[in-house]
Amino acid sequence: MPSTDSPESFLDDTPPGTTRIGIDEATELGEKALTRIGFDKEDVRIILDQLIDNALCGYPFTSLPRILAIANSPKTKNPRKPVRVIHETPVSAMLDGGNNVGYVTVYKTAEVAIEKAKNSQFSIVGAHDSYFSGRNAYYVEKVVNAGFVTIHVACGQPLVVPLGGARPALGTNPFCIGFPSADGPVIIDSGTAAMQWGEVTLHAHIDKPLPEGVAVDRNGAPTRDAKEALLGGVLPFGGHKGFGLSVAIQTMGLLAGAQLARGDVQDYGFLFITFDPGLLVPADQFADQVAALMNAIKATPRQPGVDEIRIPSERAFRERDRRRREGIVVEQKVIDALKAL
Amino acid sequence: MPSTDSPESFLDDTPPGTTRIGIDEATELGEKALTRIGFDKEDVRIILDQLIDNALCGYPFTSLPRILAIANSPKTKNPRKPVRVIHETPVSAMLDGGNNVGYVTVYKTAEVAIEKAKNSQFSIVGAHDSYFSGRNAYYVEKVVNAGFVTIHVACGQPLVVPLGGARPALGTNPFCIGFPSADGPVIIDSGTAAMQWGEVTLHAHIDKPLPEGVAVDRNGAPTRDAKEALLGGVLPFGGHKGFGLSVAIQTMGLLAGAQLARGDVQDYGFLFITFDPGLLVPADQFADQVAALMNAIKATPRQPGVDEIRIPSERAFRERDRRRREGIVVEQKVIDALKAL
Repeated sequence: MPSTDSPESFLDDTPPGTTRIGIDEATELGEKALTRIGFDKEDVRIILDQLIDNALCGYPFTSLPRILAIANSPKTKNPRKPVRVIHETPVSAMLDGGNNVGYVTVYKTAEVAIEKAKNSQFSIVGAHDSYFSGRNAYYVEKVVNAGFVTIHVACGQPLVVPLGGARPALGTNPFCIGFPSADGPVIIDSGTAAMQWGEVTLHAHIDKPLPEGVAVDRNGAPTRDAKEALLGGVLPFGGHKGFGLSVAIQTMGLLAGAQLARGDVQDYGFLFITFDPGLLVPADQFADQVAALMNAIKATPRQPGVDEIRIPSERAFRERDRRRREGIVVEQKVIDALKAL
Repeated sequence: MPSTDSPESFLDDTPPGTTRIGIDEATELGEKALTRIGFDKEDVRIILDQLIDNALCGYPFTSLPRILAIANSPKTKNPRKPVRVIHETPVSAMLDGGNNVGYVTVYKTAEVAIEKAKNSQFSIVGAHDSYFSGRNAYYVEKVVNAGFVTIHVACGQPLVVPLGGARPALGTNPFCIGFPSADGPVIIDSGTAAMQWGEVTLHAHIDKPLPEGVAVDRNGAPTRDAKEALLGGVLPFGGHKGFGLSVAIQTMGLLAGAQLARGDVQDYGFLFITFDPGLLVPADQFADQVAALMNAIKATPRQPGVDEIRIPSERAFRERDRRRREGIVVEQKVIDALKAL
């Protein structure tokens, strides 16, 4: 059945090697691990709020296991300074992430975006000198819950080949767009690579062939060998349309202060374009119209065998409360590794 | 060779049945035809400026032949009122298109977007009650030439099926994003349908099979029969990522005042989100960085047999001056039909 959810989502059974733990237990486990890596109390709270939310929304791999990735990143071992605003106007701000992990930097960037939009009905806020920001829908939901429409994009290190290219020149460059609605936030959250980079590395690790048409080898030839793809690159999704979108997002990253080159490595940039829908239509009317549009899309006659047309983000939010009660599924070896940090 | 250009572009030879005419001659032909359909002098100038530019940029099918489509649209025969602003703030405006053709309405919408952004470094401007806006890059180039970054989206009547659907619920919902650069505007212009609707109807007309994976029949089953696709719908490009983007653009169309339902037909909405890059980084520095990024992408090692990595819009703008000198290619039967209007 077609699904709008990413393939890694919704692991709700407890296969061998996994265990179900309560939210309190997961929180305590995460707090201890993050504190041992060297994060202060506020950073621990910020990072963990997202990691737990990711699990609740059905994305276990972007939850507690990410603490291990943070711990292993060379950037985490480098010195960091507090996130600070280095340029601002009433409607805009540029934040220097001070080599803080993106979970912290982008959280603070979203807070500035909300604050400025509350004062001016619009804001554009960027951040750089940061890494690993996690699940973009988490930030976008906060901005939407403050009553705003927001477009959040992030650019990163080159992993994606341009059309016709044999080497990466673009990040996986996700976009995340959120709208308030009478039925709760509607959030579209997507990368622009044909396959998530983490999935490619996982395929290489377990020697599993890639699907057709997602990667090229070091010579630019199509490959299904994930190890070869690590030497070549991933394609943009959706041919020239996806390539164009990725180019646009990489360019918007420059507005966030992503350095074009550190050596020859493009750096991360995080951008929020945020506005009050009331600039154009009464906000309540817009919220009603968004809900009605989603219901109209869901009510479309379906293909044979399809039991539901799903709006992006709908299932994640619908099932969050249930997981809050039932707990989340974590691999035992992740738990062990977190305790050993 | 992979190309970032749409398949209908760059018809520069003169196959049987076509003729090459100078820009002056094309302009005169278009002026007379548009005047006979009932457009006043200002509207004729606005419409024709785009139609000629489309031909110059290498898109002959979105040039003079569109006058025939305008003439044949029932909306063109309905009464129209001047485009007017029905709601505004210092940074925003909502325009009622008054049933004017989109070529006129969106031109005026872009003008308001530029004017407001000049005063406030930001603007968000929407328009509705209009139809047929043509080539989005035309408008976006004007906004970019005024020094701004702009995101232009348009939603339209349902032609695209949601994932899992057997009937259309989304428009072909294009996005167009433009950036100033030291080497001239960089513009990404793309629909979110797997195939342009005009191409599907053309395939149906000449009984040519569709490519795999672009359409479903009236039961929602995949089809390569274009006539069946007219009863079912076109798929979004790029699977769930393209579906999500199309949903986002349809939702943004509500901000432009697209009525959710007239009967059960979603209406057109046109939106510009425009800002001064100087809100975040010095505008000159940004223009240099955009140019450097495009050069870095172009300099990527290439796949075997690929002679150039092409940035969206680059070829169109590069070749515009040449066509201005050499003239444009028009089908003789289009010329005859325009003269017969």
